[in-house]
Parts: sequence; structure tokens; C-alpha cells
Amino acid sequence: MAAITGEAEAEAPGVVFVHGSPPFGLPFKDRLLSRFQLIHMSELPESSHVKVMLCMDHTPVTSQTLYKLPSLECIVASSAGVDHIDLTTCRLRGIAVANGSQAFSEDVADYAVALLMDVLRKISAGDRYLRSGLWSTKGDYPLGWKLGGKRVGIVGLGNIGSEVAKRLVAFGCAIAYNSRKKRSSVSFPYYADVCDLAANSDILVICGALTSETHHIINKDVMTALGKEGVIINVGRGSLINQKELVQFLVEGQIRGAGLDVFENEPIVPRELLELDNVVLSPHNAVVTPEAFEAMQELAISNLGAFFSNKPLLSPI
Amino acid sequence: MAAITGEAEAEAPGVVFVHGSPPFGLPFKDRLLSRFQLIHMSELPESSHVKVMLCMDHTPVTSQTLYKLPSLECIVASSAGVDHIDLTTCRLRGIAVANGSQAFSEDVADYAVALLMDVLRKISAGDRYLRSGLWSTKGDYPLGWKLGGKRVGIVGLGNIGSEVAKRLVAFGCAIAYNSRKKRSSVSFPYYADVCDLAANSDILVICGALTSETHHIINKDVMTALGKEGVIINVGRGSLINQKELVQFLVEGQIRGAGLDVFENEPIVPRELLELDNVVLSPHNAVVTPEAFEAMQELAISNLGAFFSNKPLLSPI
Repeated sequence: MAAITGEAEAEAPGVVFVHGSPPFGLPFKDRLLSRFQLIHMSELPESSHVKVMLCMDHTPVTSQTLYKLPSLECIVASSAGVDHIDLTTCRLRGIAVANGSQAFSEDVADYAVALLMDVLRKISAGDRYLRSGLWSTKGDYPLGWKLGGKRVGIVGLGNIGSEVAKRLVAFGCAIAYNSRKKRSSVSFPYYADVCDLAANSDILVICGALTSETHHIINKDVMTALGKEGVIINVGRGSLINQKELVQFLVEGQIRGAGLDVFENEPIVPRELLELDNVVLSPHNAVVTPEAFEAMQELAISNLGAFFSNKPLLSPI
Repeated sequence: MAAITGEAEAEAPGVVFVHGSPPFGLPFKDRLLSRFQLIHMSELPESSHVKVMLCMDHTPVTSQTLYKLPSLECIVASSAGVDHIDLTTCRLRGIAVANGSQAFSEDVADYAVALLMDVLRKISAGDRYLRSGLWSTKGDYPLGWKLGGKRVGIVGLGNIGSEVAKRLVAFGCAIAYNSRKKRSSVSFPYYADVCDLAANSDILVICGALTSETHHIINKDVMTALGKEGVIINVGRGSLINQKELVQFLVEGQIRGAGLDVFENEPIVPRELLELDNVVLSPHNAVVTPEAFEAMQELAISNLGAFFSNKPLLSPI
């Protein structure tokens, strides 16, 4: 049982408790097995002394789960978001948490920009118009709006938000941001209050993590501050936005449009949105490309390796 | 008649022959009238001594039209493309031609990138999937592909192509190009042969002008060189691509996908394309935003002003 108690890591491979089902098949499992001993959650005894957990999907890691793992020191999540993990208990017990955001941030940022350009330039709506045969019968499709020169407010300037900023600068946008705290490493204007950010933005791109503080951070006050020509892009989590209020603002034309990869009750999407041409609706696909899976696997293995070598995690939250 | 013969420009406003119908209403006309005297094509006598023509749309400027304007020295086109103008006659007669590409190039480049990201990340197809109610009944939509790291071959590295390159560099793409000649001002690899460029690219973005040399520059040989995982984006003109061969390659999965803003016989789109999820179809909207119209008006007025002041045109082709 030396390996399981983790006392003989130098000799035996480190034991990793695997939580959830790997959505990406055997190649990653083989890579893990070449370096670690895996215990799947289905094999967990009542109480276990594993020190590190690898979360493979969004299966909730509840306080009950954590209670069964009294020796747990570290959770490595393969996902970007970690709202499925009971972070309060982790904080209380000093359990370190690493996420996969780094691996996914470029893809999510790409997708955020793609959704934004789609809303502004009406790509999906134009495609729909053309496929319906309306171009040849009804004539030209209405103009979109230029991206360059727009003021973009990024809500949550972490890995993803920073990548979004980098891309939009190349399109000639002016960037500002809201975040838990001002970041000394960037020169973009910082707004401590998201309403102030909205009032000084044409576009809001929501990239932040979902926490009790950021739940419904985008509400009717923020949207009112953003104004009638405002556009909202959400690649974070559905509950960062008060969806009911967003739907109302979109239906009534109180904002110009939205690009939404996430929703409050996925895969259910409010049916009012399905009728609107000023929204682009996406089935939570921002985070995922095969290339990002590769990068995620690399990052998870590196985080586990760092844990067993007593080195700093590569992507602590 | 001094103004019309153009001999008293210092005293009277310069005479501008307006060809085609302005698609953007009175504000521009007012701005023009504040500086120039306008003669519309409907008012043109059999032969006229106007020296400069402003082309407002894609109404063909044929050799017959030019024959009626023996004193013509300059054509200012408001559009980016100038394939509606008989350039051979212009060359023979030494008529300078300016286009509006500069004003539109950012918008077209934005749109090219938007179409590319849409094809790779399946934005329009995902939106269609979600709106059809399939997300909640059939589950997740298939993965897209990452943009970063892809090798992008730009066909035509003029204003538009250069803006496309600038943007895609920010996404981590590797740029190469084909153009009439190598450009000393850029360090991207140059391929004199478009087939060679295709063989060394994952993606082709077609931005070039349509001329007799570039007609069907993208044909089955180029697409074969590009390969099964290749993607083609066209924001130039429909006839830059052999559309029949493109349709065949797309239907048979000989290339991965395409984003097409232009077609060979607009607004007719081959019906085979309407059924495909690996294409994004756009009703020739890349060039147009209200912001670009503003910039185009500014550019056209500046070109006309330069002509009457004997200064170099701002955007000669």
C-alpha cells in the first residue's frame, strides 16, 4: 500500500484518483498510466488516502466526495471552468486546485472573437438568409458594423480574456477590463465596477469564472449602461449573465445583439432567442478543438508531475 | 462652359462625371457638391470633355463609354474591385484609375477572418444545429479545428491581403503569399506559383483582384495541392475560383470546407452548396459597413481633390 499512501513516490508511480469519465478515450489514459497509478472513482473505498485527484469532466466534486478523501492535497481539473468543484471546502482544507484554462484559452479566445465578428458582420444570419433563397428574391442583406475602432470591455482578464485582448488589438479595438483586481502587467484601463466598464464600452466580452461573486454579474443595470448599440459575447458560463433579463433586452432591442456559447440551463436555450437574427447561438463549443485536447493532456500530466515532484503547479487557480 | 472643359479649375469647381447610381444617398452628394460640379451619366452629351469620372457602383465602364469621353484622364472608383472598368482601354489611353480598396480593406479583412473562423470552428453550422433543437435532443455538436498554428496562404497581398495577414498573425498563424510579384516590404514567404503556395498551406484566403490572369486562378489542381484538410476563403471575386470544380471538391470532401462571400453568378448560388455544413455562404457583404462607406467617401473626395490639384492619387491601382 506504499504507493496508495504516497510515501514511496520515488520508487513506485504516484497514485492519482480519477474523478469523472475521460471524454477523450484511451491515448491519454495510456500516457497517464506510463507515469502514474490510477484509481478510478468507481473503485474508491469509503475513505482513501490519495493525495491528488484528476477531474476528467464536470461531474461535481462535492463536500461529500472531499470528505471521503481526508489526505487530498491537490485537484487537477482538465477543464477550464472549475465551478463543479466545491472550492470553499478546498480553500478551508488547503487543497490546491489547478485548471486546464491555459490549454483552452486560445481556442476560447478565438471563439469569442468569432462570435463577436459574427454578431457585428451578421455572418450566421447572412448564411441563413442566403440558404433560404432570399438573396436572389429579396436582394441584398442588411449591412453589419465595423469591428475596428470599437471599445471592448473584457469581463475577467485571465488567460482567456488576455488572449481575447491580444486578438482584438490586431483588429484596431480599444480594450478596457473588469476583474477582481487591477492587473499591474497590463496597461488597459481598469474598471472596478462592471457597470462603469459597460458605460464606457461598445462591446462586452464575458470571459470570467463563475463564482458566487460573479453569478449574474451581467444584469439589467449593466446592459442599460452598455446601451442600445451594445453587444454582449459570453464564452464564460451561462450564469454569469441574468439570462432572463438578457433575453428581454435582446427581444426589445435594448441592446444590439449577443453571441452566446453558454446558457443558464444547457442544453435548453430560451425559445425567444431561436427567433432572433441579432444573436448567434452556439452549443458550448468554444472550449473544444482536438488541438486543445492535446494541450490539455500535456498540461494535466505536467501538473500531476509537478505535484509529485513538490514543484509549483503549472496552472493554479 | 469653362468648368465643363476644365480650363478654369482655379476659379470654378472641378467638373466630375458621375457614373452609376450612388447607393448611399444624399449626404455624400452634398459633400461632393460643396467641392465639385457634378454631371450625371444621364446628362452626358454624345461627346464630353470631362477629365475625371467618379464610379459610384459596378455599372460597367465599357470601351464605348470611354469613347464618348475623349478627354478623360482619371477614373475614381468608389468600389474596391475595378473589374467593371475596361482597364485595357484605360492603359492604352493613359487614364489613371483609383479604387476604394483602402477604405474597405479593413472590413473585408475582418470578414475574411470571420469566415475562416466560422468554417474552422463551425459557428454558423452550430447555430443552425442549436436553432433546429438538435442540441437538446441529439447532444453535442462535433468539434471544430484550432486556428492557431495553421499555415495560411494569401492569394493577393494587396491592401486587403495585408490586413488579413496582420490579423492572422495575432492568432498564431504562419503566413505565406502569392501575388503578381514578390513584395520587398514583407518578410512572409513568397510563392510565384499558386499551386506551390497551396501545397504548403492549410488554408487559402483569396483576396486578389479579378483580371484575365487571375480568372479561375483557383482550380482543381490548386485544390488538389491544398489537400483534404484544406480550407478556402474567398472575399475577392467569384470568378477567381473555378466554382464548378470547387463545388465538386466540397461535395466530395476533397477539401475540408470553404467560406464564400462571392460567387460566379451572383446572386445565384449553386444549390449543392446550400445543403453543405462545411461551407459558410455569405451574400457579398464583406466589403460593406456604414463605417467603410464613410471612409470610402473621404477617400473618393481626396482622390478627386488630388486630381484637380495635380497631386498623386491616394489609391492608384
